[in-house]
Amino acid sequence: MSVSLFVSLKINLGQHSYPIHIQDYLLDQPNFLDLIPAANYICVVTSESVSKLYLPKLQIFFELGHKNNNKKIISVILPDGESAKNWDSLNQIFTALLSAAMPRNTLLIALGGGVIGDITGLAASLYQRGIPYIQIPTTLLAQVDSSIGGKTAINHSLGKNMIGSFYQPKMVLIDVQTLKTLPDREYYAGLAEVIKYGLIADANFFEFLEKNKEKILARDPEILIQIIQRSCEIKGHIVEIDEKETGIRAYLNLGHTYGHAIETLTDYKVFLHGEAVSMGMVLAIEKSIEIFKLDPVVLTRTRDLLKFFKLPAEIPENLLDCLAPEKMQIAMGRDKKNLEGKIRLILLKNLGEAAVY
Amino acid sequence: MSVSLFVSLKINLGQHSYPIHIQDYLLDQPNFLDLIPAANYICVVTSESVSKLYLPKLQIFFELGHKNNNKKIISVILPDGESAKNWDSLNQIFTALLSAAMPRNTLLIALGGGVIGDITGLAASLYQRGIPYIQIPTTLLAQVDSSIGGKTAINHSLGKNMIGSFYQPKMVLIDVQTLKTLPDREYYAGLAEVIKYGLIADANFFEFLEKNKEKILARDPEILIQIIQRSCEIKGHIVEIDEKETGIRAYLNLGHTYGHAIETLTDYKVFLHGEAVSMGMVLAIEKSIEIFKLDPVVLTRTRDLLKFFKLPAEIPENLLDCLAPEKMQIAMGRDKKNLEGKIRLILLKNLGEAAVY
Repeated sequence: MSVSLFVSLKINLGQHSYPIHIQDYLLDQPNFLDLIPAANYICVVTSESVSKLYLPKLQIFFELGHKNNNKKIISVILPDGESAKNWDSLNQIFTALLSAAMPRNTLLIALGGGVIGDITGLAASLYQRGIPYIQIPTTLLAQVDSSIGGKTAINHSLGKNMIGSFYQPKMVLIDVQTLKTLPDREYYAGLAEVIKYGLIADANFFEFLEKNKEKILARDPEILIQIIQRSCEIKGHIVEIDEKETGIRAYLNLGHTYGHAIETLTDYKVFLHGEAVSMGMVLAIEKSIEIFKLDPVVLTRTRDLLKFFKLPAEIPENLLDCLAPEKMQIAMGRDKKNLEGKIRLILLKNLGEAAVY
Repeated sequence: MSVSLFVSLKINLGQHSYPIHIQDYLLDQPNFLDLIPAANYICVVTSESVSKLYLPKLQIFFELGHKNNNKKIISVILPDGESAKNWDSLNQIFTALLSAAMPRNTLLIALGGGVIGDITGLAASLYQRGIPYIQIPTTLLAQVDSSIGGKTAINHSLGKNMIGSFYQPKMVLIDVQTLKTLPDREYYAGLAEVIKYGLIADANFFEFLEKNKEKILARDPEILIQIIQRSCEIKGHIVEIDEKETGIRAYLNLGHTYGHAIETLTDYKVFLHGEAVSMGMVLAIEKSIEIFKLDPVVLTRTRDLLKFFKLPAEIPENLLDCLAPEKMQIAMGRDKKNLEGKIRLILLKNLGEAAVY
């Protein structure tokens, strides 16, 4: 085991504040149980693939800490993938909790990617009108984005993330070792969101990504901790200012209005979320050049970085019909970021500076 | 039309504060539209039976106020009864909202009894992570209890109200004329909750109910406004102190832990909620005599008042087996008011003074 690198941040949201711990080999720390809130009732929610990799680790800790006879630990294993982000999965959690008569002070643990985090957060916000939960994100996307900020959701057949809540976790625990086992495509998809933070808020960070792209691709733990830390800082700062997305939190949606339309029109089956966002960011930057006279070099640099990270920088030819502009327009009209039916886009004025259009 | 009686209260919950307007013939006021928050997108959620009585009235107002071409008004009509308080009904609202592309600033209106109010509040808390809603309760139970305090929920097959949220309405509008059309049994069931307020918080109010029982039974509008006002005041005061039910809000559950067990064991098919609570209160008072040496005269007076209002004051003989003590005990163990698996009961120390046991 290598020397562990440890970083700790705090999201400041008054009585809903919580820490984010980022560490290499965090799930192997002997003091792991001391990190999480004390609880006699725990329910770990995870996915099929993640359960095989990390659930046994957690179970060993819980057995070690099983001094109290009252302690009851259950787990719920959901199917993999975005298509599981629905009512059936949510209800599977409720049924497991109720069948085991788990009380109001049960701690839910989301162990997995963004889908698991979103469903678990929603389950926590609704079970008996609200119980505590923590996030242990195991994908890059979840570590830099979905596990932070308290947005929970499931999908509806008529739109992505249409049913959800704002409900903050008590803690986020990030072990960068989990990225070692992440399939390449999912890792790259997470990098799309990392690039987004540079684009909307920090030109220096964008440059940092360009300069360190080889190490990033190699998943060097030290560089991983750095990019996750900076991503969490940027997202955390925005969430602190605008928890409920009435204003600048919308900047985080750069590329997402296009991206959600791409996902809806392809029935969530062709692209990962980050891949759709990758294409969406390119479309948003093209629009920014048109609307805000953004320097076209930002488009070139972004495309180059996306391509280096093996992300799609344009709509593939075989989907030009399925994702035709007029179809995109209709799908975007259904996006929940719209106020009064008008499509609101997040664009760039400069590299590192977002604006609503 | 008689001269209208008007009372207005405020629930003080910081930025979530809201008014309760109680009025005779409120739904016939020419200025009705001025009472509710301005909104270009409105979705009225109601039940089959209530829609026939009051939906046309609201629609006339909305057509009158339809000066703005952007205005879009839809309605969702759910089946009657507690059995409709489930995911299917909730999803019917989401599907209607999404099919009509209703945006984030849509106002939901709950027009109906407690089931409609609870489902609509939950839909409002979850649609696009939260939109505003108002309550127009049309049953006594909803007017004195479920429409106030922001508890929303649907049932799960393993327990009542197990899935829900705390989400305050923007306003509660109570027209006591709607009680004129309420079936007798539902009216009496609502009176169980009114009696509860006297029992847990106000001995004088309990006496007032005893003295005015004839007028109450006759649904005299003036007396109705008085008992609804006092009930809302008591409930509002408790909710102000303890919005999320971490402490004294539990007092409102007098008779409810028993009541929920009765409803669960009879599959929600035999009793109305208020009827189950009526029997539950008697059981709680019997327990209070045993535990807190409560004056037995409280039991006699409560039983007399319940019986006068045609409410069940004991478990009917044909259900003694179905609701046997050991079965009640198991069902009560699943009640969400339990902390760490222990059954917590709300009992009385004196008439007008509740305590946790």
